[in-house]
Amino acid sequence: MRLIVCFLSLLAVLGPAECGNVLVWFSDGSHWINLKIVLETLIERGHSVTVLVPDASLFMKAKESDHFSYQPFNASMDEQEVRNFIEEFVYFSVYETDQLNLLQLLMKVYKFASIIQDMSISYCDGILKSPELMDKLRNGMFDIVLSDPMYPCSDIVAEELNVPLVYTFRLSIANVLERMCGQLPAPPSFVPGVMSKLTDKMSFTERIFNMLFYLSQDFLASLAWRKFDSYYTEYLGRPTSYCEMMGKADIWLIRIYWDFEFPRPFLPNFKYVGGLHCSPAKPLPKDMEEFVQSSGDDGIVVFTLGSLVDKMPKELSNKIATALAQIPQKVLWRYGGEKPDTLGENTRIYKWIPQNDLLGHSKTRAFITHGGTNGIYEAIYHGVPMVGIPLFGDQPDNLVHIKARGAAVRLDNIKTMEPQDLVNGLNTIINNSSYKENAMRLSRIHHDRPVKPLDEAVFWIEFVMRNKGAKHLRVEAHNLTWYQYHCLDVFAFLITILTVVLYVFFIMCKFFIMRCCFRSKNKKSKKE
Amino acid sequence: MRLIVCFLSLLAVLGPAECGNVLVWFSDGSHWINLKIVLETLIERGHSVTVLVPDASLFMKAKESDHFSYQPFNASMDEQEVRNFIEEFVYFSVYETDQLNLLQLLMKVYKFASIIQDMSISYCDGILKSPELMDKLRNGMFDIVLSDPMYPCSDIVAEELNVPLVYTFRLSIANVLERMCGQLPAPPSFVPGVMSKLTDKMSFTERIFNMLFYLSQDFLASLAWRKFDSYYTEYLGRPTSYCEMMGKADIWLIRIYWDFEFPRPFLPNFKYVGGLHCSPAKPLPKDMEEFVQSSGDDGIVVFTLGSLVDKMPKELSNKIATALAQIPQKVLWRYGGEKPDTLGENTRIYKWIPQNDLLGHSKTRAFITHGGTNGIYEAIYHGVPMVGIPLFGDQPDNLVHIKARGAAVRLDNIKTMEPQDLVNGLNTIINNSSYKENAMRLSRIHHDRPVKPLDEAVFWIEFVMRNKGAKHLRVEAHNLTWYQYHCLDVFAFLITILTVVLYVFFIMCKFFIMRCCFRSKNKKSKKE
Repeated sequence: MRLIVCFLSLLAVLGPAECGNVLVWFSDGSHWINLKIVLETLIERGHSVTVLVPDASLFMKAKESDHFSYQPFNASMDEQEVRNFIEEFVYFSVYETDQLNLLQLLMKVYKFASIIQDMSISYCDGILKSPELMDKLRNGMFDIVLSDPMYPCSDIVAEELNVPLVYTFRLSIANVLERMCGQLPAPPSFVPGVMSKLTDKMSFTERIFNMLFYLSQDFLASLAWRKFDSYYTEYLGRPTSYCEMMGKADIWLIRIYWDFEFPRPFLPNFKYVGGLHCSPAKPLPKDMEEFVQSSGDDGIVVFTLGSLVDKMPKELSNKIATALAQIPQKVLWRYGGEKPDTLGENTRIYKWIPQNDLLGHSKTRAFITHGGTNGIYEAIYHGVPMVGIPLFGDQPDNLVHIKARGAAVRLDNIKTMEPQDLVNGLNTIINNSSYKENAMRLSRIHHDRPVKPLDEAVFWIEFVMRNKGAKHLRVEAHNLTWYQYHCLDVFAFLITILTVVLYVFFIMCKFFIMRCCFRSKNKKSKKE
Repeated sequence: MRLIVCFLSLLAVLGPAECGNVLVWFSDGSHWINLKIVLETLIERGHSVTVLVPDASLFMKAKESDHFSYQPFNASMDEQEVRNFIEEFVYFSVYETDQLNLLQLLMKVYKFASIIQDMSISYCDGILKSPELMDKLRNGMFDIVLSDPMYPCSDIVAEELNVPLVYTFRLSIANVLERMCGQLPAPPSFVPGVMSKLTDKMSFTERIFNMLFYLSQDFLASLAWRKFDSYYTEYLGRPTSYCEMMGKADIWLIRIYWDFEFPRPFLPNFKYVGGLHCSPAKPLPKDMEEFVQSSGDDGIVVFTLGSLVDKMPKELSNKIATALAQIPQKVLWRYGGEKPDTLGENTRIYKWIPQNDLLGHSKTRAFITHGGTNGIYEAIYHGVPMVGIPLFGDQPDNLVHIKARGAAVRLDNIKTMEPQDLVNGLNTIINNSSYKENAMRLSRIHHDRPVKPLDEAVFWIEFVMRNKGAKHLRVEAHNLTWYQYHCLDVFAFLITILTVVLYVFFIMCKFFIMRCCFRSKNKKSKKE
């Protein structure tokens, strides 16, 4: 069957594809949602795709409808443990952070970081320390490993299978992974650290903050990676590090583009494929379409806080519902909690909404979002201005990007927010035409590129399979130490030489002056 | 007519094109050869193209067959003057450089640099100081200015016409223009300066040399640009600089790609479109094809030293002919000088050869080249290994790139070269299969990209016209001073703070120690 699809794809409009065998590393949440679309296209183009999936996965579920093979593995934890952890983490991030003092906050962050590390290592063990699974993978004749570097150890398996590695990635805090392991340059003077909430236009104090942000994150990362460094060194039986292994990746598919990201230096093996999951809107379900049409000229507002936060305290949901009741638009709100008492007649609550189809609807006037990258990209794709209520992680920073481009109003804090703030935000982006114009400008930038992002991602995955890697795109910086990279040894040498030359010059001057003085003295004394 | 072509192109397979009006800055030599292909494609896609051409141009000749309009201007020098200068410059570069002492060399280089500057300013005057021409341009309703930044003042005209500017560029020495004016990052630890003849794998001494090369070129450039800075400031009536104005370009189309260039950091508005002039081979003229076929299994060698060097001293041409007579291949030699006495039966001399068609011929085994970028790209396109005899300019450095990739043997000096060196070089690349394999690998990299280079160049020119610029791709570094860019002000501030903190800490320690000692002394004395 695979060969037939492969042969057909050779003839089809999709263009030629040499059918390969793709091993996909486990991932979860929005990482998996994004990756899945790439995998579906690879399948359509005749490739064979095998996905490693742990027992305890929330999003990666083997479905009959999927055309890729799932290869399960045991990760010594159950789904409920993972779910509990995520719920605790989200609750902490959204509701607790400003109730704790610095010490409590640091302790809690340390606790979460430790749990995440332990979970990661447990996943690694589940694959690397299962001889049966590793044998199966070795015999699987894979051509490539495709992974999100948030989930470690794929680089070890790529090395063990002797196949190239392609990453698909959104971000790490202050780009520590991309900078320190991928060698992505980021001058702190105009490249704001990811999650610093800065733009590329920084004042002097902001540049100081940005520099300290980079330095502190580099320091914390090098501490946090020690556990992985030991794990990698022990497993591979040679001194190595988490970062060194990650740096061996052939291509980094970065899930943003210049519609969202501030322009910055990058490398030939970093491909910016943001918005690859976006697609034209499909028709809405009948009752939803009727509700949307009933909005008349005022149009609709689409509201979601993402898949991880679909419940909230009653008081908060009432506050939001009160605000929404005050606007002339109809509102479609994705919400899994109890119906708020103050819900207006213009607002309907849905357990799930076809977000992309709603954002692409001609009646849509605004999008209230928590600022997740996937949602922001759907809004950019369809040119919809946003009101951002960031909750945690990269969301506040994401919204800074869209606000800086004049396509969003950003509210600071979901807990302290007043109904009037939300009403004002919505009225601003709906009634001040510059927001819609800026959103449309971003949409034009998004669509107007030489290759569609999904096609570009698939192209580079296939390129790596066809050419057994893409090492010609990998900078030599990977083979330099940090002091060589920054030319500190060269500067030290040049300064030493300069000092010696100046010193010799000084000694010679002194010698000649002394000699002159001595001679003139001698002459004087002779005359006397 | 233009509108009809435009409309047809909207429907044709070429894809949609919004028909624009392109003003092309004058250029010459290989710069013009490369640019012309882009212009022809723009015409095919329904755009209107007007080319500024000086009276004294060697390559830009208005031809009946061209579909673009030529707009002549007077540059207060005649064609013979330009021709004499180029001949003198080439003769100096190829034959004189190693016969002069350092002082003579520097004086000669200074003389040439001054003449080039004067010629450039004379060209600028020809356009900017002709009120009729400037009025004509202002009324020309242009959508874009397209230029090679080697030929200055296009940025001034773009500003005067209030239209975006796109550069098409090969290189400046040590990338001074791209780095200092375009903000292209180039860490000296792994990005060899253009024309330094270094690769990206540098030893400690090579890194020192590279650093000094960058520093010296930056210094020389800032001296050389002073004349332009004054000219720009005077013309625009405000303090500005050559570099500042150049930095306003929307897109830099760089005429290399990662098949040739060592991987390096770059910017979102730098698009690498190397090899855009290459195309599949067309059939050869009948008599040439017969000669090629007569080579049998041995195949042919294609030999040219470029359009600027088509004559050489008799002694040298005899040496080369002697070498060529010793190989079993048939040789097609583009040469405009007198027939060498030692010409073998296997060698034929042509005033002109269809270089691309010959390189794409199945019988072609090797290419003897001076190392010009256009020729190298045709060889990469067709996967032909090379023997390089670099003459001047970027040619020695270009050949270092291809040699580092194992697809070329590079001879050092055309004058001291012995016939056997050329024979050995040819035998090596023809008989050692690794050279052909590496050339084919480069060819695969060249062809295997998401968009063809010509299409990519045209895409970004059209993008800029459609969107009235591409400022979203231009880094904020353009608005920073050199010390802000390198964070020197931030470091100075942080070091000052650190020093103050340490000093206060030291003073406090001293104070407490003194107090402790004083107290214990007091106690002691009381006890006593």
